[in-house]
Amino acid sequence: MSKQLAQVRIVMVNTTLPANIGSALRAMKTMGLIKLVLVAPKTYPHPDIQALAAGAQDLFEHLEIVDTLEDAIKDCHLVFGTSARSRTIPWPLLDVRPAAKEAIKATCQGQQIAIVFGREDRGLTNEELALANYHLTIPVNPDYGVLNVAQAIQVVCYELRMSALEQEKVDQEVDEMPLVQGQSMQWDEPLVTQQQMEEFYPHLEKMLTEIEFLDPDNPRLLPLRLRRLFGRIQLDRMEYHLLRGIFSRVQALTSGKWKKALSDKEDQPNA
Amino acid sequence: MSKQLAQVRIVMVNTTLPANIGSALRAMKTMGLIKLVLVAPKTYPHPDIQALAAGAQDLFEHLEIVDTLEDAIKDCHLVFGTSARSRTIPWPLLDVRPAAKEAIKATCQGQQIAIVFGREDRGLTNEELALANYHLTIPVNPDYGVLNVAQAIQVVCYELRMSALEQEKVDQEVDEMPLVQGQSMQWDEPLVTQQQMEEFYPHLEKMLTEIEFLDPDNPRLLPLRLRRLFGRIQLDRMEYHLLRGIFSRVQALTSGKWKKALSDKEDQPNA
Repeated sequence: MSKQLAQVRIVMVNTTLPANIGSALRAMKTMGLIKLVLVAPKTYPHPDIQALAAGAQDLFEHLEIVDTLEDAIKDCHLVFGTSARSRTIPWPLLDVRPAAKEAIKATCQGQQIAIVFGREDRGLTNEELALANYHLTIPVNPDYGVLNVAQAIQVVCYELRMSALEQEKVDQEVDEMPLVQGQSMQWDEPLVTQQQMEEFYPHLEKMLTEIEFLDPDNPRLLPLRLRRLFGRIQLDRMEYHLLRGIFSRVQALTSGKWKKALSDKEDQPNA
Repeated sequence: MSKQLAQVRIVMVNTTLPANIGSALRAMKTMGLIKLVLVAPKTYPHPDIQALAAGAQDLFEHLEIVDTLEDAIKDCHLVFGTSARSRTIPWPLLDVRPAAKEAIKATCQGQQIAIVFGREDRGLTNEELALANYHLTIPVNPDYGVLNVAQAIQVVCYELRMSALEQEKVDQEVDEMPLVQGQSMQWDEPLVTQQQMEEFYPHLEKMLTEIEFLDPDNPRLLPLRLRRLFGRIQLDRMEYHLLRGIFSRVQALTSGKWKKALSDKEDQPNA
């Protein structure tokens, strides 16, 4: 996966604020991207870049500075230009999620990809956008579509990582075959089986009968409600034994008390 | 869709940097969320908040400041705690994408949702994470998992918007094709709020103490395990009262009221 993400470069055109470059590096590193290309940045180098890229210093090794967008993308196979507005000439336009899928798919074929971001104030020019194979857009709130460039890079890098992870999973499944279920919840204990639950409900009902909460001759909806309730938890083995332990304790106490209460009564001379 | 996103609040706990609050508001607004709750922010108000929230001023109307996380989520039905690390007890853990799907599905059933973000330096405490139904994680680069809080909020809000857009599409399709099976569960009873659950756990623990299943001086992981267990069910109101009724019955039995009930019974002429 890291190999694929290394094939996707982020390109920033004429960036004004050094903080945005620093944030971009950080956003990239959190998601596993490594290559940033700056096209004629207004201010470089600058201490703010270092400050905001804290911990992402190693990405400076891969950083390139070039004069034109053409230079930045010349060895790329597939170029996405980010764009908030619709343009004079309609271009193939993809939302960020399908765009990231296309990009990762292309890396699997050995391609080099560029995602190009424009100036803080006015994005990419029509000429620059025309250099892209696709335009990429982030579906934002139409009333307030002003994602700043660092935030946009964060979302794009996140989607690239998600696509790469998905691709990796697909590859693994193909490798391993007997297919693993997609649910990604991590758990420390195995979940109990339905068969175990078929011992759980009678135990619960017996306990409830013993404390006279449940009338077995007229249970109404109670057993059903309990099944619905515990059925949707998916107990793990430890929780299962914990709950059954509680039921047993209640049973022991009530049968003991009951017996003791009865025998106390019988022991009394005047009973 | 905007109605659904309005039901999801972002909660920031003990935020230190005003810039992060401003960026959060901006990130929310770009994705259509409106409600931010600050739990004991270190610095508020501050000009940096206004500066970074440029254009998102209307969100200040909905902003709330409270003293505790409990206050921030008390009227919520479903709470996600964001967490980078794995914890002592694994909690139901969802990646941001499936978590956003669950959250939006729940808003369609009228639920209020909270997504809770921790401190810049050390996130949420274990106690705070135990208040959540689910933990939410963003699948970042394992070598560099330091997404800052504003970036994390950006990614989460983006996924919420994407899920809401998807849901909208599904709803439209359902409208157009009346025979498509509705995927959301129909429930007969309203779900309980976090505030109600904060009465539930002490009651359960008191009962377990009384039956000597729980040692309050040495509770070990039991209270946490029970929170995890009942937190992931999302009890409805009837189930809630049913379980609390069972706890009370057990308490009455063990406290000797049972004995009294018995003797009362025997005192009856026909007993």
